[in-house]
This record gives sequence, structure tokens and C-alpha cells, in this order.
Amino acid sequence: MTAAGLSTYSADVQAEVAQVREVVSALHAELPRWELVVWTAGNVSQRLKSADLFVIKPSGVTYDELTAESMVVCDLDGNLVDGTRNPSSDTAAHAYVYRNMDHVGGVVHTHSTYATAWAARAEPVPCVLTMMADEFGGDVPVGPFALIGDDSIGKGIVDTLSTSRSPAVLMRNHGPFTIGKDAKSAVKAAVMVEEVARTVHISRQLGEPLRIPQEQIDSLYDRYQNVYGK
Amino acid sequence: MTAAGLSTYSADVQAEVAQVREVVSALHAELPRWELVVWTAGNVSQRLKSADLFVIKPSGVTYDELTAESMVVCDLDGNLVDGTRNPSSDTAAHAYVYRNMDHVGGVVHTHSTYATAWAARAEPVPCVLTMMADEFGGDVPVGPFALIGDDSIGKGIVDTLSTSRSPAVLMRNHGPFTIGKDAKSAVKAAVMVEEVARTVHISRQLGEPLRIPQEQIDSLYDRYQNVYGK
Amino acid sequence: MTAAGLSTYSADVQAEVAQVREVVSALHAELPRWELVVWTAGNVSQRLKSADLFVIKPSGVTYDELTAESMVVCDLDGNLVDGTRNPSSDTAAHAYVYRNMDHVGGVVHTHSTYATAWAARAEPVPCVLTMMADEFGGDVPVGPFALIGDDSIGKGIVDTLSTSRSPAVLMRNHGPFTIGKDAKSAVKAAVMVEEVARTVHISRQLGEPLRIPQEQIDSLYDRYQNVYGK
Amino acid sequence: MTAAGLSTYSADVQAEVAQVREVVSALHAELPRWELVVWTAGNVSQRLKSADLFVIKPSGVTYDELTAESMVVCDLDGNLVDGTRNPSSDTAAHAYVYRNMDHVGGVVHTHSTYATAWAARAEPVPCVLTMMADEFGGDVPVGPFALIGDDSIGKGIVDTLSTSRSPAVLMRNHGPFTIGKDAKSAVKAAVMVEEVARTVHISRQLGEPLRIPQEQIDSLYDRYQNVYGK
Repeated sequence: MTAAGLSTYSADVQAEVAQVREVVSALHAELPRWELVVWTAGNVSQRLKSADLFVIKPSGVTYDELTAESMVVCDLDGNLVDGTRNPSSDTAAHAYVYRNMDHVGGVVHTHSTYATAWAARAEPVPCVLTMMADEFGGDVPVGPFALIGDDSIGKGIVDTLSTSRSPAVLMRNHGPFTIGKDAKSAVKAAVMVEEVARTVHISRQLGEPLRIPQEQIDSLYDRYQNVYGK
Repeated sequence: MTAAGLSTYSADVQAEVAQVREVVSALHAELPRWELVVWTAGNVSQRLKSADLFVIKPSGVTYDELTAESMVVCDLDGNLVDGTRNPSSDTAAHAYVYRNMDHVGGVVHTHSTYATAWAARAEPVPCVLTMMADEFGGDVPVGPFALIGDDSIGKGIVDTLSTSRSPAVLMRNHGPFTIGKDAKSAVKAAVMVEEVARTVHISRQLGEPLRIPQEQIDSLYDRYQNVYGK
Repeated sequence: MTAAGLSTYSADVQAEVAQVREVVSALHAELPRWELVVWTAGNVSQRLKSADLFVIKPSGVTYDELTAESMVVCDLDGNLVDGTRNPSSDTAAHAYVYRNMDHVGGVVHTHSTYATAWAARAEPVPCVLTMMADEFGGDVPVGPFALIGDDSIGKGIVDTLSTSRSPAVLMRNHGPFTIGKDAKSAVKAAVMVEEVARTVHISRQLGEPLRIPQEQIDSLYDRYQNVYGK
Repeated sequence: MTAAGLSTYSADVQAEVAQVREVVSALHAELPRWELVVWTAGNVSQRLKSADLFVIKPSGVTYDELTAESMVVCDLDGNLVDGTRNPSSDTAAHAYVYRNMDHVGGVVHTHSTYATAWAARAEPVPCVLTMMADEFGGDVPVGPFALIGDDSIGKGIVDTLSTSRSPAVLMRNHGPFTIGKDAKSAVKAAVMVEEVARTVHISRQLGEPLRIPQEQIDSLYDRYQNVYGK
């Protein structure tokens, strides 16, 4: 694959690309740090504000080797625009989300253990923790089984998250995808979804955790997003 | 929020604030070290000996960014007195504990996984380990479900711990709060409550752990607190 | 044991040995990094392209002490050819694999926790994750119970893997062995088999994970090995 | 407590003390490294060859603060002979083992999670792994419930290990003690007992692991201790 490069883009766009490459490269270090990935699995992307482009991890590169320069730039159809490596094999899913969810500025995909364990049973994580009410506003939903290679995964993510407060979806038999206003928010959601998937899993091993009534979930979510969040 | 600052306090108080900022900042590093927190969750505070003030973590700051200078100082009603950031959103609960439990000099809150898993089932951790008898003097109790925003959480902590030897309470659907004579003791209790919550959870996965008779719990607790502790 | 040394081999072979010693020594660091081994357990080997020899870990040396120089060289009957230490006690199994599977250039053995837990029940890990379809092309199979000391372990590995797409076999009551075109591929398979063994174990703790239909496993495996792999 | 010091001992003994202090101090770092302890829990000791003395961890010192100088020297009745701190509160148990088991040169005590979980149910770890046959020669046995403060713990360890091949005993409701020819061997046994306790626990969560026939356990144990061990 030969990339057209950024020469037809303005200096502002080129400057933002340089800055977002740094951000996305640095955020990848959070994935092994919080034990969300092994080997080369997992990827983070961020959309540009100045053009219909996003920056994403290249395919098959280990976390030790990742640098800002090795990050690749794609358009919203997932075509490589700038970079010397192939984009992540999950690029089509990221692109679909950006094309169809205007408020999303960052996407993360991992195979984090506990979230993926719920996904393999196609079971949502029930909202039994105040931390879940704060961050997810309810259960963490499950998306459909979808094969890689076309828009099926992206469509499954968008369809599921469009009808949920949750910034995380558990794609069936596959793993979590998370969204946010930027890549950092999506990484935080990836860390938090694994944390709540693990805690609720462990709680349920010895009995049934107690649900939080919907009214109190709503109250916690509203406060966290609107009061605390500012 | 603009803080009044410490200019109306004596030099002794100002010196103690400077020292306690260092202590509290350094103790925050124990929370990720023992895997009690992810992202920015969790907070440690310590009361001053020289004034009705306490030092606590600011809100929403990552563990990598914490410094003694970034710690904030509050009065016992939870109002910000000194610092350039907002206090932790759990400040009201810490303040309530200090107002109502004179012997408490340190408070810690985490969402540590196993302790929170017991809390989501509202189930006390039974005393089946000599280490629990030593440190907790019996079961680790559960506190009520309480929403953030008023004194409910603080009152739940104080009501529960006032009738227990345990320095840790599992707030229902929320997570553990621990107390101690200073912040270091409360951090130790936070580490130990997660350890015993994990060990007893794992033990119960394959059968029923054997209770330690109350008389022997009393003997172990007395020895540890009164003989060994000196 | 006194080794004959490499003096009867060509300069090319000696150069390849030097290079493969570096590779194999460095790859051993991946085993504790991904928490696949404790103490001195676990071993990695790589076959030479230029001679019927392979490089493997010496016996009983801790991971901190491993160096390229401490690696040992054996022939395909498992006899020590070069090195000052005894070869790993699993050398006969590695040698058997190289003698009987021409396409294998790397072998890894660990006692990684979750893979070994399945092995102790003699139960294959069912293919319920897209990541498993990609990497293993189906279930991870179980090999026979075999005592150390003759070719039983090697034969069990070869017999099982010859009739499977999987690069990993769970030897009953023992632990996983993995193969690859080189040592790095076999290490990747060792990391991945523990990851899928853990995730599927956790998923099954709370219910039955959903199988992926064979046709879709085939599709994912074909794409990953033939399209993505290039 | 004022220690008599080593001035009445020969230069050889003093030299061995200096060397064993270094060994024991360094080995303590293995306990947090393999996640066998939290906070200040856990202790390692080694008997001298040149006198009836042993070196052990001081009480209540964190792992970061441990140095060779801070280690303390006790006689075989557990009395402090040299050092500026109190010996570990488990010193009486170590001393009892040295007084009653001549071949033991090192003792380790931890509260490692999985081993302690079996101990809380007073259930031996069944021998279902070739690694267990090698290292333990059969099941890991359980010792009695015993209060600290007299010889009960030491006697429970000695009574149990005297009738077992295992270098590890799970003291009921308490945790594992391990022995070895020196402190390093006992630390290895502490690492291995947690590893097998964890692996067998996880295996049993989803069914019954398959026992290894006694004859094959014997064969593996004999080979590992007598052939490989040399």
C-alpha cells in the first residue's frame, strides 16, 4: 500500500496530525499498563478536528516499538493517507464509528479478559456498582456477532451504542470497543469497562449482586456527568 | 472555587500542612502499587494535629501527576481552605468521619476489586484467617447504600465502624472505606481489607472456609493490638 | 557432560549459532513478562537453518542470570553439542518435535496457570473467541499423560499437533507446549494460549460461552493466516 | 530487648552471620516479586552452619526498608542474640523447626493467597500436576489450627512435615510454612506452593482435575530429586 501523504492538506492539518500522533502513541502505553492487552493486540485512534482524518496504530507492531512516527493516518473510509505501515486490521470498525457518530473523537478496542469473558456469553454487565452508574449510566451492553472484513463490526458498535448511555460495547465472542470525545476518554472507558467487568464477575461468583434501582442510577449518572464532570 | 488560604493560621499549622502534604502525596503511591485503584479513583486523607483541618487528594488528577503541592487542605466541614484544585468528590465523607470520630487521624477510600465484590452483594467478609483476627478483630462489616452529595456516606461509615473493631467498612454497591490513627494506618487497612477479601473469596469458591471460634479471635486480636503492636 | 563444541561446523553455522543464542536468550524474557513462568520453569528453543542443531535454555538457571552465552546447543537427538551447562530437562521433547515436524523452527514449554489448569482436567479449550479462531483455528487440543525420560512427551506433542491447526497442545497434568516457524512465533503462541485459556475459563465460570460456528471459525482462520498474516 | 551481641562468638561465626544476613535480606525481595506477601507480612530465615543460630527478618519493617544490617540473629530458642530490632513475631515457629528438624537450613512463612485459601478450608492440595509430583512428591498437607505465643505453630509444622515428602505445610486458617536445606530452597518451595495451589484451584473451579497415579508420582519425584537434582 502506498499512501498519498499529507501534502495536499493545510499546514494546520499537518500540525494537528503531528500532535495527535504523539497523543495516540502515548495512550497506547496505557493498554499494557492496565493489563488490557497481550502481545500486539488492541488499538487506539483519535479523529482530527481540522480534517476528516484519524490517527490509528499500525498493524502487528509490538508496544515496545510504537512511536509517534509509526502511527498511521486514515480517512473516514479507512483508507491509508499517511504512514509507512499498514493500519490496524480493526481500522474499518474505527472508521465506521467516526462516519456515523459525529460526537465521537476517540475509539479504543481491546480483548481485555473480563470484558471479553462477558462477551463470549453475550451477557451484559449488570449495573450493581455506583462506579458503573457514574461512568456507564446502566448496564454495559452486548453487540452482535460480526465477522471482520466489511462494515459488520462498525455497524454493530454504532447500533448498540446509539441506544445506550454506555461508552462501551461488548462485541459478542470478540471483545470491548469504547468511545469518547477524544482518545483519552475512550482509553479511560476501556480501563473502566474491564474494571467493572472484573468486579461484577467476582461478585457474582459467590451469589447475586444487588441491583441499584434505576432512579438512583439516573441520579448518580446525572451528577457525575453534569456536576462532577465540569 | 477560591480558597481562603492558610495565612490566618499559625506558623506551626503551616509547617504541619507542608509535612502532611508530603505524607499524603507519598501514600497515594501505595494505592496503585498494591493494585487497589485504576485511573484516578481512590483517595487518602490525614487530619492535622495542630488545627481542625485535613489534607486530601484533589479531584480527577492521575497518580502520575500527584505532588505534595497538588494536595488540597479542607476544614472539617469539607470546605476548601488551601489549594488550587477542587478537593476529591469524596471529601464530604472524609470530613464527616473526622467530625464524628475523634480518634481517627486518617481515612482511605478505594474501589479495590474483591472488597467491592463483597460490597456489591452486601455481604460481610467472615473471619476465617488468623490475619483477619489480628487486623480486624472479626468480620469486615457492610455499610448501607448511600448516595453521594450529602452526609449519607459519611454517616454510613461512622455508624458501621462505631460498633465494630474493624478499621474497614464495605459500603454497599460502592467499595471500602478504611480508618486509622493516621493516613499510613488507614492505607495499611485498605491494603489488608483487599487481601483478606480476596483470600476468603477464593477459599469460598471451592467450599466453606472454617470459622475461627470467637474466643480465639479475641485472643489473637488482643495480642496483636496490645502486645505485638507496641 | 563435556560438549564436543562447534569446531567441526562451518563458520556459517557458528555465526548462526551466535545469532540464535541472542534471539533465544532475549525471548526467554517474554515468559516472566507475560507471567507464564515462575522461578526457573519454562524454556524456549530455536532450530538452526544451517545445520541440524537447536539452541535451548540450560537447566536450572534463573531468568535474571540467562545470557546468550549460557544458552546451549544440541543436536536433533538432544545431545549437548556446545555449552558449559546441562540442557533443559525438556530437551528430549524439543528434539523429538524438530526430528518429526520439518516445518517447526521454534518450540516453547511453560506451566502457565490457566493452560495448565485445563490440562489437569484433560479438557480442550473450546473455540468461543474470534481471537482463538484467528490464532488457533479451533479448540486448543489436549495431549496424553506422558512421563519424562524418553520420547513419550515429544511423541504426544507431535501426534496431537499433527492433526490440529493449533500451534499449542495442553499436555495432560503437565502444561502447554507450543510450536512456530521460529522461536518468536512459538513464544507468541505460548502467550496467546494462556490468554485464551484464561478468558474462556473466566467466561465459563458464570455460564456457557457461545460457540462460534465452524464455518465462521474457518473463515476467520483463513483470513488471519492468509490475508492479514502477509 | 537488648541483644548480647556476637562478641563471644568466633570470627568464623561472625563472618558467616555477615554473609547470611546478605543472603536472607536479598531473598526477602523474592516474596513481593512473586506476589506472596503484602505490606510487611512474610519472613525468611536461614540457620548458620557454624553455630546454633539463625538469621531472620525483623518485625514490622517494610520490604523497601530491609537491609542486611536490619536482619536479626537469634538462638535456637528464638532469643535475640544480635540486632537492633525485635525479631519477626513468627520467630518462635522458625526456632522450633530448627530445634527439631536437623536437616532443615531455611524456613519461609507467607500468607500467599491461594495457599492460604486452601488452608482456610483445611484442605490439602491434591497432586494433579507433574510439577507437584516433582517438587512435593504428593499432596501438600494441612497442619493444625494453632495460636501464636507458644510452640503450637512450630509443633504443628514439624508434626505435619515429618510424615510427608512435601517441603510445604498449609497451617489451618493461617497460611503456608516451607522448609529447605537453606533459605533459597525454602523460598523456592514458597513460590512453588503458591503456584500449585493457584493452578489446582483454578482447575477445580470447572470440574475435577485428574489424579496422577501414586506409582507415577513416585517415579517423577524420584527422578527429580535424585537425577535432575544433581
